[in-house]
Amino acid sequence: MADESSPRLTHLAEDGSAAMVDVGDKADTVRVAEAIGHVRMKPETLALILAGNMKKGDVIGAARIAGIMAAKQTANLIPLCHPLALTKVSVEIEPDEALPGLRVRALAKLTGKTGVEMEALTAVSVTCLTIYDMAKAVDRGMEIDGIKVLAKSGGKSGDWKLDT
Amino acid sequence: MADESSPRLTHLAEDGSAAMVDVGDKADTVRVAEAIGHVRMKPETLALILAGNMKKGDVIGAARIAGIMAAKQTANLIPLCHPLALTKVSVEIEPDEALPGLRVRALAKLTGKTGVEMEALTAVSVTCLTIYDMAKAVDRGMEIDGIKVLAKSGGKSGDWKLDT
Amino acid sequence: MADESSPRLTHLAEDGSAAMVDVGDKADTVRVAEAIGHVRMKPETLALILAGNMKKGDVIGAARIAGIMAAKQTANLIPLCHPLALTKVSVEIEPDEALPGLRVRALAKLTGKTGVEMEALTAVSVTCLTIYDMAKAVDRGMEIDGIKVLAKSGGKSGDWKLDT
Amino acid sequence: MADESSPRLTHLAEDGSAAMVDVGDKADTVRVAEAIGHVRMKPETLALILAGNMKKGDVIGAARIAGIMAAKQTANLIPLCHPLALTKVSVEIEPDEALPGLRVRALAKLTGKTGVEMEALTAVSVTCLTIYDMAKAVDRGMEIDGIKVLAKSGGKSGDWKLDT
Amino acid sequence: MADESSPRLTHLAEDGSAAMVDVGDKADTVRVAEAIGHVRMKPETLALILAGNMKKGDVIGAARIAGIMAAKQTANLIPLCHPLALTKVSVEIEPDEALPGLRVRALAKLTGKTGVEMEALTAVSVTCLTIYDMAKAVDRGMEIDGIKVLAKSGGKSGDWKLDT
Amino acid sequence: MADESSPRLTHLAEDGSAAMVDVGDKADTVRVAEAIGHVRMKPETLALILAGNMKKGDVIGAARIAGIMAAKQTANLIPLCHPLALTKVSVEIEPDEALPGLRVRALAKLTGKTGVEMEALTAVSVTCLTIYDMAKAVDRGMEIDGIKVLAKSGGKSGDWKLDT
Repeated sequence: MADESSPRLTHLAEDGSAAMVDVGDKADTVRVAEAIGHVRMKPETLALILAGNMKKGDVIGAARIAGIMAAKQTANLIPLCHPLALTKVSVEIEPDEALPGLRVRALAKLTGKTGVEMEALTAVSVTCLTIYDMAKAVDRGMEIDGIKVLAKSGGKSGDWKLDT
Repeated sequence: MADESSPRLTHLAEDGSAAMVDVGDKADTVRVAEAIGHVRMKPETLALILAGNMKKGDVIGAARIAGIMAAKQTANLIPLCHPLALTKVSVEIEPDEALPGLRVRALAKLTGKTGVEMEALTAVSVTCLTIYDMAKAVDRGMEIDGIKVLAKSGGKSGDWKLDT
Repeated sequence: MADESSPRLTHLAEDGSAAMVDVGDKADTVRVAEAIGHVRMKPETLALILAGNMKKGDVIGAARIAGIMAAKQTANLIPLCHPLALTKVSVEIEPDEALPGLRVRALAKLTGKTGVEMEALTAVSVTCLTIYDMAKAVDRGMEIDGIKVLAKSGGKSGDWKLDT
Repeated sequence: MADESSPRLTHLAEDGSAAMVDVGDKADTVRVAEAIGHVRMKPETLALILAGNMKKGDVIGAARIAGIMAAKQTANLIPLCHPLALTKVSVEIEPDEALPGLRVRALAKLTGKTGVEMEALTAVSVTCLTIYDMAKAVDRGMEIDGIKVLAKSGGKSGDWKLDT
Repeated sequence: MADESSPRLTHLAEDGSAAMVDVGDKADTVRVAEAIGHVRMKPETLALILAGNMKKGDVIGAARIAGIMAAKQTANLIPLCHPLALTKVSVEIEPDEALPGLRVRALAKLTGKTGVEMEALTAVSVTCLTIYDMAKAVDRGMEIDGIKVLAKSGGKSGDWKLDT
Repeated sequence: MADESSPRLTHLAEDGSAAMVDVGDKADTVRVAEAIGHVRMKPETLALILAGNMKKGDVIGAARIAGIMAAKQTANLIPLCHPLALTKVSVEIEPDEALPGLRVRALAKLTGKTGVEMEALTAVSVTCLTIYDMAKAVDRGMEIDGIKVLAKSGGKSGDWKLDT
């Protein structure tokens, strides 16, 4: 991708107007992206979610399903994203008592012409929003933070990992 | 709302399974919610976006439209959200050179039976994701942070503001 | 509703062409509908689902979330259904070893101008389809049966229950 | 597919949580699936639909269109289904006076990495729901039954037909 | 509506940025809008469609269903449209041999706070697009024309009719 | 394509009922389509839009984004369109003071088995509808005209251009 070598916002056409970038000439390669994020909450909110989870697992289960389904809506939400035939999406949600809160990690995979970072980021975002929604009755001050791409592979620009 | 007085996750039924809470008996009142968030980026990425903005405004313009449209998709993304006839949605995006990055604020409004925090939060999230998408070719390390409800009004529980 | 007294298919206009029936003059009343259905499967498939359920509950949990979300898509799926601001949706899934299989029951509720049978039926259908999807790798011969309205209340025509 | 040989619910990850199965390594082959189902109704309801059909065909025509459109929504409705570029969808609706009611058969086709049973089943389900919707004013006791996969071909596991 | 008295584009906020106009203070009144448009085609294309129509009516039937369903998608397509609980949508399609082509008229109705012109216009547009799609194999030069609002009623600004 | 040689409406099955045409046997080729259309308005409406555009560009910017996003919804709006993985969509909007009004041109591109005229036409239509929506407060008599395919390339039938 010329993306990396020239500092130009590739979604802007020559005259500066928005357009979906042409990816027709890119090769079909296996592309994977991982993204993370977290929801910070009161310790007692986390305890309530985990206790519920011990019984029927619905907060975490519902948030995971919402995140997976949202990955498939990415091109309908982000104006200049290409519609993609994702071959895999997964979402992991882990409690972190030090935060305190829940940490979310999503993976998206595709054999295709364009990267899947946005799909992984959208999965993380909607998973976090769903956690917020299901716990907001007991904790209005929750905050969603740290949404970023962790790693991506595939495509002309090769593998990339976030410096941490 | 009993939500505030009893520390129970209202989206869980008696047996712990997920369900859309019954809001049929709530009064129709004017409800407003405001949420914020931001995208942290390299200073040169911000400069590029703002320069583009000076020409045709498309990054910020596209992200604002995406955020407004996403607010209307909230109930399709968040499993237990009620479908709502929003009467207003607005999204503001301001540069913050100290961050450096873009700060996003969304407002959602409704005359109805349930709060609109999720709609404001969804607008903020998708606005941030769109900014990420449009600038990712020049800056893969951007991070979305600080997504939270700033204030809400309307409904039985009255007005609420985030302690800051 | 004239619906009940005259045996005419109300979705057909005078000339027989399809149209969304005008419900503008109907009163806003509380309307509730319950629908049921089931997925018939091999006993060992049911055992596998229930064993999975004992661990993390994901087949049943995912199917319940899918059913609730589908109820909100009813007007996008069924051509002549009115878009409705549902105030409640719930889905229950119970194993029945005599079937053998899983029994699904959905409830939809609205304060509005038209009944919510289609929303309850759509929730049941998509819950059953999701069960099928999650178990099809081990049992291709499953069958979805018995999808029907159990009871409805509200509206001019009063309460109604299925004769059983 | 390992699906067939090992009795494991492939949508559950190692730890039992839901995930979209990785199909990236599967071959692109022509895949076809056929599904059936029916709506049982009073004989006079069937007569009314068929009489309407003789005039302008709208109940059956609308239900067919709804079923075809629903097949394209499968991945948005069923949480762990992959988004697919279907190459064909067709829906047939035939009256059966012995039932009495309407029999529905749907076919979905794809050149791709995963089967299309869910698309065919979703088409059948929404076709049946639309028939119910359009006739419910005259017959509330209709029942949707017998939704199942009739045959599938393509993919590593080869052809399969329902024993009947 | 102040809309009519001051020549300002009400979708632009004070600073010129796009926002969904606040309709929360408007009264709930019955609002109706009618829109028209047409597809111009070769006479032999019209003849083929009408001949098909005589058999099973599918071009005109499918286009009508598509238009009705599209009206319900208006707020998902037009960025600053409010989500509305339409109480009625109907679409009429008539041949006009003088054109030659098909004339489309749509009506949308709502008891609510904002007009329904966009819903009627969207229904007409998608009806015309569907006609184009179904006939394009035999006539690529078809043209969609004359899409406009014919009349609207309800709301503070009173009734309005197009001068013709 | 047999489409071109035989004057038959290919979306109708042998018995005249609607079906999504099987494109499974078509070759994957690069396909491009361009479509145009325009919105006719009062000269003062055009002046207001252009003045707004000089400030923040939102009418034209929002309409362009709406058109691009709509292209991705084509298969959800037009009953018999195939879901496609578009590799590029762009929308241009130019003022024409002689009209007076705005002229819209959209391009859609795909490496796949079927043409993308409907995607280009849908982009034009929704761009025009969005312009109408954003300006309707000052000009109710606007009219959308001249929506047609300008050129298409790719596929067995070769290149095609509108005679002008």
